[in-house]
Amino acid sequence: MSDFLYPLNDILFSLQQVAQFNRLEPYLEEGVDEDLLAAILAEAGKLTEQVIAPLNWSGDQQGSRVEDGEVIEAKGFKEIYQSYCEGGWGSLSGAPEYGGQGLPASIATAVNEGVQSANLAFSLCPLLSQGAIEAISSHASEALKNTYLPKMISGEWTGTMNLTEPSAGSDLAAIACKATPDGDQYRIKGQKIFITWGDHQMSDNIIHLVLARLPDAPPGVKGISLFIVPKFILDQESNPGQRNDVQVVSVEHKMGIHASPTCVMSFGENDGAIGYLVGAPNEGIKAMFTMMNNARQGVGLQGLAIAERAYQQALEYAKERKQGMKADRSGKAAIIEHPDVLRMLMMMKSQIDAMRSLVYVAAVENDVSHLAAGETQKKAMSRTALLTPIVKGWITEQAQEITSLAIQVHGGVGFIEETGVAQHARDARILPIYEGTNGIQAIDLIGRKLHSDHGAAMAELLAEMKAEIDQLASQQETQRNAEKVQQAILLAEHATSACLASMKQDPLLATGSAYGYMMLMGNVIGGWLEVRAQHLSVNHDSFTEQQKDSWKQSADFYCDHVLARCRYYAETVITGQSSISGLSDASFVR
Amino acid sequence: MSDFLYPLNDILFSLQQVAQFNRLEPYLEEGVDEDLLAAILAEAGKLTEQVIAPLNWSGDQQGSRVEDGEVIEAKGFKEIYQSYCEGGWGSLSGAPEYGGQGLPASIATAVNEGVQSANLAFSLCPLLSQGAIEAISSHASEALKNTYLPKMISGEWTGTMNLTEPSAGSDLAAIACKATPDGDQYRIKGQKIFITWGDHQMSDNIIHLVLARLPDAPPGVKGISLFIVPKFILDQESNPGQRNDVQVVSVEHKMGIHASPTCVMSFGENDGAIGYLVGAPNEGIKAMFTMMNNARQGVGLQGLAIAERAYQQALEYAKERKQGMKADRSGKAAIIEHPDVLRMLMMMKSQIDAMRSLVYVAAVENDVSHLAAGETQKKAMSRTALLTPIVKGWITEQAQEITSLAIQVHGGVGFIEETGVAQHARDARILPIYEGTNGIQAIDLIGRKLHSDHGAAMAELLAEMKAEIDQLASQQETQRNAEKVQQAILLAEHATSACLASMKQDPLLATGSAYGYMMLMGNVIGGWLEVRAQHLSVNHDSFTEQQKDSWKQSADFYCDHVLARCRYYAETVITGQSSISGLSDASFVR
Repeated sequence: MSDFLYPLNDILFSLQQVAQFNRLEPYLEEGVDEDLLAAILAEAGKLTEQVIAPLNWSGDQQGSRVEDGEVIEAKGFKEIYQSYCEGGWGSLSGAPEYGGQGLPASIATAVNEGVQSANLAFSLCPLLSQGAIEAISSHASEALKNTYLPKMISGEWTGTMNLTEPSAGSDLAAIACKATPDGDQYRIKGQKIFITWGDHQMSDNIIHLVLARLPDAPPGVKGISLFIVPKFILDQESNPGQRNDVQVVSVEHKMGIHASPTCVMSFGENDGAIGYLVGAPNEGIKAMFTMMNNARQGVGLQGLAIAERAYQQALEYAKERKQGMKADRSGKAAIIEHPDVLRMLMMMKSQIDAMRSLVYVAAVENDVSHLAAGETQKKAMSRTALLTPIVKGWITEQAQEITSLAIQVHGGVGFIEETGVAQHARDARILPIYEGTNGIQAIDLIGRKLHSDHGAAMAELLAEMKAEIDQLASQQETQRNAEKVQQAILLAEHATSACLASMKQDPLLATGSAYGYMMLMGNVIGGWLEVRAQHLSVNHDSFTEQQKDSWKQSADFYCDHVLARCRYYAETVITGQSSISGLSDASFVR
Repeated sequence: MSDFLYPLNDILFSLQQVAQFNRLEPYLEEGVDEDLLAAILAEAGKLTEQVIAPLNWSGDQQGSRVEDGEVIEAKGFKEIYQSYCEGGWGSLSGAPEYGGQGLPASIATAVNEGVQSANLAFSLCPLLSQGAIEAISSHASEALKNTYLPKMISGEWTGTMNLTEPSAGSDLAAIACKATPDGDQYRIKGQKIFITWGDHQMSDNIIHLVLARLPDAPPGVKGISLFIVPKFILDQESNPGQRNDVQVVSVEHKMGIHASPTCVMSFGENDGAIGYLVGAPNEGIKAMFTMMNNARQGVGLQGLAIAERAYQQALEYAKERKQGMKADRSGKAAIIEHPDVLRMLMMMKSQIDAMRSLVYVAAVENDVSHLAAGETQKKAMSRTALLTPIVKGWITEQAQEITSLAIQVHGGVGFIEETGVAQHARDARILPIYEGTNGIQAIDLIGRKLHSDHGAAMAELLAEMKAEIDQLASQQETQRNAEKVQQAILLAEHATSACLASMKQDPLLATGSAYGYMMLMGNVIGGWLEVRAQHLSVNHDSFTEQQKDSWKQSADFYCDHVLARCRYYAETVITGQSSISGLSDASFVR
């Protein structure tokens, strides 16, 4: 199995150059200069490489188990969680008034990329905690914030999201879990499934955020409220005391992320689990979406991270494995010398480069949306909202292709579990599903993000892309690729018009083309950012000529072999609806 | 978990109508009329549904293990193997002089489709035996044939293929296993890996076909010979007697096909395993390719079969699972009512329809190549050779997409192993790798199949496709789709010219585009056969209107949503080489 190397240079380049991290400067009380950022990430890199990555494979083999009603996580995970917390890695972007370091969230993103590459199953625990912290920060009362945030930000307590029930998956309106008022608090009763890190022994308490219905709640999504339900009820000194009436029933046996306990949780089997209302009654969905949007970008990041890990392993194997003769017959060739293997490796790398650019562009945009004010903030909020389903959907789809290619480069040994590369593909397979399936992301994109403002935010993005690409098309180094992106942007414009028209005409039918539209937009945006990166690399002083060549080759390959898919996706949007419109279950008769 | 249903109607339609099974009639001593064929396949269907399919999941969970130097296969597999042999299913296409039923191999293909859908891991044992039977039939002496074939055809003994060694995977020239003459026989020494069903307890003997080098053999592929090495040496009465010097060292822990023991085999650790030369010395590769070509079409069939199984499970789930509201808000909708789910299901079905057509077209062509004589045979041989890498490569790639979509339709429960759908994706992941990786298939296509006859066989195929499609473009029902296929054929012609030109100019570099070319050709051929099937369905008396509609919808969808990928693949071939030509390991520097 290959060692994981935190891709520090690429992350710094994407975050600082491509995503223009310095956009945040005006809003930061203390600046984060290039050297400081590099130093922070180098330190994070060491932790991910030396402490977290080595337990990825053993975690997969061991998984987790329920013993006497408690989940026992994989061996060594408690220790790596402690290292993570002691290094302050969970509190980077936490609010200073609750003990956080107040750094922009995009820096936490850059750290999390490494943690997720190193050990996807492990990374989900702090990721879910961050989501819970965000939801509490944005919606809970001062009292709840003061009680829960400091220990959650320090990592002493972790957080979970409890949405799904057996009959309520994509359809949150079907949530049936009940909350009954009991003095200042509530009694929660019901079952939740697919609760990531729903129980474990790594922290002193687990703070469950639970969606449930009040007795008089209206039906549907407008009758759902959000509650804090701690595993241990806090005592007078706010320390974990008595066990709350919440139990883990079982952990799932999954295709991947074995070391991440996916729990069936039972709330209130006895007297009802004690819970505390977060925000206003019946406004739980709004609060949960704060968490979800965060988590959705986080899942896109996971797609990038697992693809990166798989790519590294394939590249190392391709350099070492000898098979067949060199072109000049002078000896055995490493398989990386075969053009078909080079093709697979560059297919991985060029997409990863584009995915990373998009991740950090969206992360910086998200930071601006929180830090700025007025028009700048408004624009950043709308851009973040627009990019989020693309970050989640497109990147996690590409991660399927890339982790599968990594197996393919290995040939037969790729299918052997001990090689470790199959684990990445198994782990990656959850990404298009959780935090809203990619079908849901696509529908979110054409509905809430495109149709609801009549395409204004998308038109603005396309215009910006076009202006930049037109400029790059006039420069010699980038002309070839920029011209290809120009064509792709045209296709994106046509598809956007087609999508808006069909949303107007038949919003339900339009959802049949949503997936293709999402993939198209990810693909075009990837091309735009690849050419931007190529351009920036030329003038990037700290790059060697070889590094500059590498960025050029990545962009060239992307434009020839990935961007070329745009026409296909655009066609499914523009002309593909007619062959979806007549379908029903009768179409599958035999 | 859903029950498997043998898709009898679709298989009969593909084999008889689309693939024109009646082309074989002139060559058969006893005709196989439609009723007989339907009766045979209906019987096979029952076996696959009722006997073989129920052990698929338990086989995955149990896998196999080595105990006292013997492989113990999953529980119940011995019994299903017995049922399979007792029904005569392994001997369908065997030569009558050795106890076979002498039926065309395409009928065995139709039976095997069901066996593979039902239980891919199990199916590999009879599949490998069939390959071994074919190699012995074509190349071994009469004495060896008389000794081994009857029991192998009856299924009392199984067969294996022993090619791969730790340093010789795709590169067979590196085979190091040694064979030393010892009287009339040989002593074999060496280690082989990835030996499918290399040991088990289901049969009385296991006949290993082993590639090894004679002492004076020239280096490379021209110095490899083929040997029969039985697990038990036959006694005077040709019954399994003394144990040969061949041992299973271990079984691999794989991503999928857990119930198929993938063995590390050690030959000749003591005195050397006794082996018998098959064919002439140093001509083992030729003999092995007889087996490989058969096996390669067989792996394409596996891609179809596992895709079919995954599709059935997704379709059933989509009809049952309720989530979200009906379009008219009259109640809960089954998820099949959502257009994005319909899209995923028809993406699966339409590709499966095209894949099945191609499988049976290639199978009938293969039968003609064995049964006919003269020009007809020659043409069929060249067509079979041309189609084989496309059947193997394109279909197994599509199987990745389809099995992954089947998980996606399930949402979260798709990732839970007990659901059973993840198994299909894990099982399918080996298909692009074994029997020659898909990269090797693609290189075979552009090299041995396209370049070596200067594109003649491909030109002939394209001309036939064009003539048929032009004709169908003039008919009202098929005009829309035929016109789309006409465009795709044009692209295929351009890409073929580009491919031939670059093979002439730089054959090594040309291999970088081979994968795209293979995918393009599969995609176009799929479109051609989809429109043929649509046309034939219209006039197919036994079809209901709904069945006819279903074939039309499949073809419509294929032409809009799958065929549209042709341009992408063609571009990677026609213009994509420039961004591959400069690549080397330096391109991946960071």
